[in-house]
Amino acid sequence: MTGERTAGERTAGERLAVLTGGQLAESFAKTAHGVLRYGTREVVCVIDAAHAGRRAVDVVPFCASPAPVVADVAAAHALGATTVLLGVAPFGGRLTEAWREMLGTAIGLGMHVEAGLHTDLRADPELAAAARAAGVQIRDLRAVPDDLGVPLAEPVGARVVHTVGSDCAIGKMSVVLELDRAARDRGLRSVFVPTGQTGVAIAGWGMAVDHVISDFVAGAADRLVREGAGRGDLLWLEGQGSIHHPAYSGVTLGLLHGSSADALVLCHRVGRTAVYDYPGTPLPPLADIVRGYEQAAGWVRPVRVAAVALNTAGLDDAAARAAVDAAAAETGLVADDVVRFGSGRVLDAVLAALPD
Amino acid sequence: MTGERTAGERTAGERLAVLTGGQLAESFAKTAHGVLRYGTREVVCVIDAAHAGRRAVDVVPFCASPAPVVADVAAAHALGATTVLLGVAPFGGRLTEAWREMLGTAIGLGMHVEAGLHTDLRADPELAAAARAAGVQIRDLRAVPDDLGVPLAEPVGARVVHTVGSDCAIGKMSVVLELDRAARDRGLRSVFVPTGQTGVAIAGWGMAVDHVISDFVAGAADRLVREGAGRGDLLWLEGQGSIHHPAYSGVTLGLLHGSSADALVLCHRVGRTAVYDYPGTPLPPLADIVRGYEQAAGWVRPVRVAAVALNTAGLDDAAARAAVDAAAAETGLVADDVVRFGSGRVLDAVLAALPD
Repeated sequence: MTGERTAGERTAGERLAVLTGGQLAESFAKTAHGVLRYGTREVVCVIDAAHAGRRAVDVVPFCASPAPVVADVAAAHALGATTVLLGVAPFGGRLTEAWREMLGTAIGLGMHVEAGLHTDLRADPELAAAARAAGVQIRDLRAVPDDLGVPLAEPVGARVVHTVGSDCAIGKMSVVLELDRAARDRGLRSVFVPTGQTGVAIAGWGMAVDHVISDFVAGAADRLVREGAGRGDLLWLEGQGSIHHPAYSGVTLGLLHGSSADALVLCHRVGRTAVYDYPGTPLPPLADIVRGYEQAAGWVRPVRVAAVALNTAGLDDAAARAAVDAAAAETGLVADDVVRFGSGRVLDAVLAALPD
Repeated sequence: MTGERTAGERTAGERLAVLTGGQLAESFAKTAHGVLRYGTREVVCVIDAAHAGRRAVDVVPFCASPAPVVADVAAAHALGATTVLLGVAPFGGRLTEAWREMLGTAIGLGMHVEAGLHTDLRADPELAAAARAAGVQIRDLRAVPDDLGVPLAEPVGARVVHTVGSDCAIGKMSVVLELDRAARDRGLRSVFVPTGQTGVAIAGWGMAVDHVISDFVAGAADRLVREGAGRGDLLWLEGQGSIHHPAYSGVTLGLLHGSSADALVLCHRVGRTAVYDYPGTPLPPLADIVRGYEQAAGWVRPVRVAAVALNTAGLDDAAARAAVDAAAAETGLVADDVVRFGSGRVLDAVLAALPD
């Protein structure tokens, strides 16, 4: 996989403006939140008229970014932004007229635009013509290579940790990003391997595997870990979906079987007792979810869950501690909320579980 | 899903020529074999210079078709063929120059062409122009709707039986076609629901789910069974891949979870002890494969394996009987080779397992 084929490596020195147009505080803006908290490119500002004049961190503490929020694209341009990233996944993944206009303005002002919609912006004749005229790029974070195949049956040459989850949108990406950062802080050659559009926006490489033809999901995972092995020797492969999700379980299993994982980290949102999108699909007890993932992995290649990463958002610290203790007692594994309490204990447990 | 969006319903009165160009006897020609044995459209002839002058059944007994084999496209045209179906899946799914030439000849003679390659023939400018000039259709058996989504959480309104397997290419489609035929012979409103290109070529509707974006596999299965429910009340949903297949397990699980299955039939090729494409991936004992599928289904919705359908090709009758008895003893389920010994016993077991 090369920069040309995927969303690609970004040019050094780019300065981002993250467009959330009124929705910075909403969960739809998870791409914005992830890029603000974990991104490696400089973020000049957020564009969001509803929150203009504040700092990102004051609107969403998780962002942990002092970037100012400005009212419009022109203000971002005045601050020196070179690229506008659409930081919201609108319902259905289609481009609305309002977004389209703002992105058109950005192109007119000579800025690159970057988005991960189901609509490929490069296929919009008007935006494409404007980008050609302005000499700027339109980048599709969901673009996937057209030469994908099946996994190679060969060692990857790196140790791979894969996050799996009880449900979608519970923080699997945040967990690998926290663990990767903690591992790098310890001097390890650690690499985050992105499998979704937000991860691609953060890391500047990777692949949105949910946009790959179904026959090639495992092959895509395999290609990603091999590319990761060229960047370091401890890989954190972002998970997608859940084996319990009626719509997305196939992506989950394909990633799991294509990952060559040496250890799994199970992510769970405390209090979630049914699949969020399918309330009629109950989730089993945590220990059964652990067993399910180990069974599923074992159909192709055995691997164990090394630790449980809980998302305790919405609980106070005492309730969060109690939830962590209960999860550890139930599963017999190290458990923690790595965002709230730090990643040290989960990282220790993962490193202890890995082969030398 | 409508005829326009997928490969679609075929025009009544079409007369097929199945093109295998030298490979009729090879396993690559499984689309040809399936269409010859199970197809509902009249097959005028097979086009295969290597076997010209014989009958299909004499080259491949499984075809069970007296259709003559002719040497070239012109001979098929002379026999009154209206449509040429490419019956071979060439390695990698790409169109070779030789096939392209033969299909071009067919178009020039005023015949429709039909294929399920990874290459979409409609994107070939020369073939497309020739088809327009001749007023004939180029049909892509792998074309999928562009408005797929996620499964509905609603009853389907029909009883669904889904074939699952220990490996790829072991006869899952043949098993559902035999069971569907036997059920119709008993007067049941039974329907074959195709999930692969060969099934689409046979039935004239359905969807090649391996060509769907990974996020939509379960949604595709759900749409197929709902369309099937408009055609009958006992549905046989073709399975794909295997939970043990390192490349394709994601498709398998997506289909399983999107299928709303009321009963499963496990297909297995006797003597297969490792995944064919990945000899380093061993298969567990048959009883464990049964348990694995029931566990996997249960992550979303519990369903049991009702019977085991063995493929005993290559064994003599006595060895086949012994294999059937051993599988029944190991799993505690009814087992049989439905192609060799008939579908009655497996059909009885499935019907007994279904809700009223």
